Amino acid sequence: MSSKLKIGIQGAAASFHDVAARKFFSPEEIEVVECSSFKILCESLASRESKFCMMAIENTIAGSILTNYSLLERYGFKILGEVYLPISLNLMALPGQTVGDIQFVQSHPMALFQCEDFLFNFPHIKVLEAADTAESAKNISEKKLRAFGAIASELAAQTYGLEILQSRIETNKLNYTRFFAICRSEDYVLPKNPDKVSLRFETEHEPGSLTKALDVLKKYKINLAKIQSIPILGRPYQYSIHIDAEWIQYADFEKALEEFKKVTSNLFLFGEYKRAEREGI
Amino acid sequence: MSSKLKIGIQGAAASFHDVAARKFFSPEEIEVVECSSFKILCESLASRESKFCMMAIENTIAGSILTNYSLLERYGFKILGEVYLPISLNLMALPGQTVGDIQFVQSHPMALFQCEDFLFNFPHIKVLEAADTAESAKNISEKKLRAFGAIASELAAQTYGLEILQSRIETNKLNYTRFFAICRSEDYVLPKNPDKVSLRFETEHEPGSLTKALDVLKKYKINLAKIQSIPILGRPYQYSIHIDAEWIQYADFEKALEEFKKVTSNLFLFGEYKRAEREGI
Repeated sequence: MSSKLKIGIQGAAASFHDVAARKFFSPEEIEVVECSSFKILCESLASRESKFCMMAIENTIAGSILTNYSLLERYGFKILGEVYLPISLNLMALPGQTVGDIQFVQSHPMALFQCEDFLFNFPHIKVLEAADTAESAKNISEKKLRAFGAIASELAAQTYGLEILQSRIETNKLNYTRFFAICRSEDYVLPKNPDKVSLRFETEHEPGSLTKALDVLKKYKINLAKIQSIPILGRPYQYSIHIDAEWIQYADFEKALEEFKKVTSNLFLFGEYKRAEREGI
Repeated sequence: MSSKLKIGIQGAAASFHDVAARKFFSPEEIEVVECSSFKILCESLASRESKFCMMAIENTIAGSILTNYSLLERYGFKILGEVYLPISLNLMALPGQTVGDIQFVQSHPMALFQCEDFLFNFPHIKVLEAADTAESAKNISEKKLRAFGAIASELAAQTYGLEILQSRIETNKLNYTRFFAICRSEDYVLPKNPDKVSLRFETEHEPGSLTKALDVLKKYKINLAKIQSIPILGRPYQYSIHIDAEWIQYADFEKALEEFKKVTSNLFLFGEYKRAEREGI
């Protein structure tokens, strides 16, 4: 039996989740558990098939993946840390072909969307949506599909023996995806000197009710890194607010949190963690 | 030549965009122009093939469709109004079959996601992602595909002669999508007494810079209906903030806007319009 750390990822080996896992953990110490959906990813963690999981939480193009916040809350998982991954997309195919030979291209809908400008220039290529970037590359490789291209990571081309016909075909070159490393709540240990938190709270729909909450953060020099309101269904005009906040001194956050509890309701902490570098993005 | 108003929609006839168009305009006065992507939808409006368009902008499950805000800005389109549409999803197939006969189900990835709990109970059904809910229904109908199901609107079942095998299969029954009715900027006329605005502005990443902007809204009793920060790529720690705000007196908003300009940068108004009813959602 492998003594490697089992890390659940969404998609096949060499998916962007895999790349993110290799960035967060030591690549040689992990073994990925492939999960075909975020729900299955959570099941893998809950059932202890995986020790930790990587979970995409937002990207430049689509913003937050709100459904994943819901999953984290429903399963009671905690955020261990974060990874920012620049997303470079490449058109790849079985070796010995040119772009002109490609009649079909398959990938995840979001990757296809990010390459819309590139694909616009090749109207002869028919676009096929697939569940995953790496899965598309694997499929072409396993079934030896000529005239088929996949849009996926460089790692996927290496892993599945495909040739990159055109690299960096994404429209927005500063495109990135942010991932959380997550764990079961009983495995959660507060890191030393955390400097970032992801939380949500609820507020009344009256002028200034959000400002009251934000004023507390301002008072303790807690910096908002992200804010997003989400309507609460069945309770018109009431909102759930998702916030990422950062600080220099953890003690400031601890004080802010006490006051914050008084001016908000249903406060929920997804986790306190060390913020990640963004490497120029 | 038809004298009907040409309305661009995303997807095939009977898609949820079509349902939204029928809610915003008089159904008998419009003729829909089917567009297979949001980019093509915008091209249809820019080229005057469509007079107006419907564009999904957010839904309960996935939150805002940020890419559509980018398209609105890039094309210089304006928001005429909004529609909130409760999304009821139904499993439909060629008449005379039961759920047990269905081996494949196709729909838009978001609709499939919203029915994940239902599909979880039928592990024998293989899920196929498609570009559009209505297109899936049309495809089954035109190709007479037995053993295939589509997940789509009631209108799609009626339009394409399919039988609903199970109705309301969405996990979240309070699920809705919000659509904008949009127009070319030269066709934009400020409605009488608008009471809602969609705008974005930029702020510095320093504690309290957002609060300063929100304080202006609070001062003039302008109510935040939505807020979302979006990182500005290539400018680490700077954010673009999207806001929807509502008011009772338009004059209050006019005054607030003047002050708001002084405490924010790169302010952009997507449109001032009349807020829509949400009918209990």
